[in-house]
Amino acid sequence: MTRQTAMLNAYTPGAGHLSPEDAALAARRAAALGPAYRLFYETPVHLVRGEGVHLYDPDGNAYLDTYNNVASVGHCHPRVVAAMAAQAGTLATHTRYLHDGILAYAERLLALFPPELSHVMFTCTGSEANDLALRIARAATGGTGIIVTDNAYHGVTLATAEMSMSIGAAVAPGPTVFPVPAPSAANYPKGIAAGFAQAVSDACDRMAAQGIRPALLIVDTIFSSDGVFPDPEGFLEPAADAIRARGGLFLADEVQPGFGRTGSQFWGFQRHGLIPDMVSMGKPMGNGYPLAGLALRPDTIAEFGQKARYFNTFGGNAVAAAVGMAVLDVIRDEGLQQNAATVGHAFTQGLRTLAQRHESLGETRSAGLFIGQTILTDGQPDPARTARLVNALRENRILVSSTGPQGDSLKIRPPLPFSLANVDQFLTTLDRLLPTL
Amino acid sequence: MTRQTAMLNAYTPGAGHLSPEDAALAARRAAALGPAYRLFYETPVHLVRGEGVHLYDPDGNAYLDTYNNVASVGHCHPRVVAAMAAQAGTLATHTRYLHDGILAYAERLLALFPPELSHVMFTCTGSEANDLALRIARAATGGTGIIVTDNAYHGVTLATAEMSMSIGAAVAPGPTVFPVPAPSAANYPKGIAAGFAQAVSDACDRMAAQGIRPALLIVDTIFSSDGVFPDPEGFLEPAADAIRARGGLFLADEVQPGFGRTGSQFWGFQRHGLIPDMVSMGKPMGNGYPLAGLALRPDTIAEFGQKARYFNTFGGNAVAAAVGMAVLDVIRDEGLQQNAATVGHAFTQGLRTLAQRHESLGETRSAGLFIGQTILTDGQPDPARTARLVNALRENRILVSSTGPQGDSLKIRPPLPFSLANVDQFLTTLDRLLPTL
Repeated sequence: MTRQTAMLNAYTPGAGHLSPEDAALAARRAAALGPAYRLFYETPVHLVRGEGVHLYDPDGNAYLDTYNNVASVGHCHPRVVAAMAAQAGTLATHTRYLHDGILAYAERLLALFPPELSHVMFTCTGSEANDLALRIARAATGGTGIIVTDNAYHGVTLATAEMSMSIGAAVAPGPTVFPVPAPSAANYPKGIAAGFAQAVSDACDRMAAQGIRPALLIVDTIFSSDGVFPDPEGFLEPAADAIRARGGLFLADEVQPGFGRTGSQFWGFQRHGLIPDMVSMGKPMGNGYPLAGLALRPDTIAEFGQKARYFNTFGGNAVAAAVGMAVLDVIRDEGLQQNAATVGHAFTQGLRTLAQRHESLGETRSAGLFIGQTILTDGQPDPARTARLVNALRENRILVSSTGPQGDSLKIRPPLPFSLANVDQFLTTLDRLLPTL
Repeated sequence: MTRQTAMLNAYTPGAGHLSPEDAALAARRAAALGPAYRLFYETPVHLVRGEGVHLYDPDGNAYLDTYNNVASVGHCHPRVVAAMAAQAGTLATHTRYLHDGILAYAERLLALFPPELSHVMFTCTGSEANDLALRIARAATGGTGIIVTDNAYHGVTLATAEMSMSIGAAVAPGPTVFPVPAPSAANYPKGIAAGFAQAVSDACDRMAAQGIRPALLIVDTIFSSDGVFPDPEGFLEPAADAIRARGGLFLADEVQPGFGRTGSQFWGFQRHGLIPDMVSMGKPMGNGYPLAGLALRPDTIAEFGQKARYFNTFGGNAVAAAVGMAVLDVIRDEGLQQNAATVGHAFTQGLRTLAQRHESLGETRSAGLFIGQTILTDGQPDPARTARLVNALRENRILVSSTGPQGDSLKIRPPLPFSLANVDQFLTTLDRLLPTL
């Protein structure tokens, strides 16, 4: 596989058709934030307000958001904002004092996991959660070897960036990082479950040849940056068995699929009928408030906890706990997991129906409201056409982006209150745009 | 130096005199959060509310907070809470869309730095800021060697924990981490400035002997975990020159001293008349909201920005920017930097006056409202007596902790609205308790 070097769907300074006001903002960004920041789209979007599944520009134009999974229960959800404000006005200290909030939230969250995962630790970002998992896995296994998929994304700390192949060739994989092909039918034509497990075993063999002991197999259970690979259900279990047979641990990275998005289950790993050793959580957990965490089996954390302790200044503070609790309340009270199942199913069916009339629509891979849609030209995946489509949708005020190593698929993951009417707007616009690209 | 293995001021489960309610909370913590979490004090404190410089337990008892530097402009400051709630109810998206808020805040923040530091990048935690700095320093210098002080604390990611010697012997220093003695008069009796610079040069020599090139000298400019070493002003400049002479960069970690706490200057590095290559910020930046960042010279980030890009999902989101702006407003409008200078001076003088009557009060080292106070027995620093004092103060509803490799000094760093009356309460209580310990 050729590793991409450029970011998918990134703005090229000077391109696009920015208004004078937006061009001025872009110039101020470059001056103040420096060269490492990127904007989305050929013509970046300027936002001033969000509500539900919509974002608004300064002229009051509504953009249908089919991309942002952070504001998972809807942009600026009033119950989440109210919980944040109430707790921030009452107490906002850390986990070295006794406080009810963090415990009530921890217990509520743990009740959503299999009983084997009975501890939870709190960080501010998914990067920190995966980075902590790495420290814990090293302590628990005595090994250092890490297996990831070959377009994985697991974070931006030094350690997690080195195991995030999707960042591109500029960041070399760490010396103990062993990528394996993502679990697609193309990569494993004889069967994904057995093939992926064999790839994990083979990676352990390559480690052993270098004197490296396995510590961790870490996968995003929806394989978001690899291209979205949810099926067949259960295919991950043999891979988890394979890493454990070699003394390593299995980490389900639920930063993308977690919190009900996949519809039929609350967590992505539950599609696969397995119990991970650790589960990392992030993006949707606080609906935008920096809240992330790690659920664990007690035996996994015993060694680390005994010797090294963990303190994260903001992680699990009283406000984070109140926000996290409000997010769980909203998911439950508004039936958002069920909505993800129902609307996600309709969305997928709608795309497949549309594909009967548009040769450029290839495979639709989905679980709930997480959808990967391959875009074709002459029957072959076409990253350039995908990019044109992403930008054409943006011009029609629908926000989406692409995924896969070369960006040949739409990555669709709207806020969970997405409605059938929203699906219809997306499909109608897609139907109109596809013949023009 | 013997590295500590236990955390200073940590609760030992089963000890203390917890109420039945608090004992139940502690048990729930152990069950839900697992073995890596620690509480403060022999008898942990249960908090339900905060306001200004006070924290409150469930019975309504007020604790004078002389320790928490995160709620730097005061616990639950209404202007900060209002800014957070207003923005969270309006828009909370990330830095890949154009938004005014992040730019207004970035420009306002950069105006507080020397003009050479003209870029700022945003993260959620100080750990992430220092971890990012490490990635940037590697790219800019081509080296990997890191110099830290020998009881430094710079974060909890894998990379920053390996350069945080204060975490204790359970976390081995990274193979490219070279500790040097902290800049105390005891460690450098012939002169701190020249001695510390020489130690940096010597560390570069040790790197060279192992084929390692220098990347970074990173110091907390108030040396908080090393024991608080602010004087003499200017002593850091030769060390910064020394690392640069060897091709490395100088990073001022302002997570502890920044945002006006040292009184005479807004940043700790300004005491030293130098301009760092990078400056990391954290704890007080969002008054408890997870907000941190890194200010840089453009040449430092050029290589990294060109190749690797940076995106932090929550870092620099619209709410973070609004909160950060409100914190800067409050510091300015309430004169908190000046208050830190005035009240910090009175606090220091009060401790020194008290020391004339109490042999157990040793050296007072301070800059503004950051104070290290050595506790003695028979003229020698006494960690055990310091621990007894910390717990006796807690029993008298004054919250403080200890610092230094063995914990032989009080670490005093209250919220910045601390008043002369608050100082008086602390000193009066100390005066009464010292003869009993």
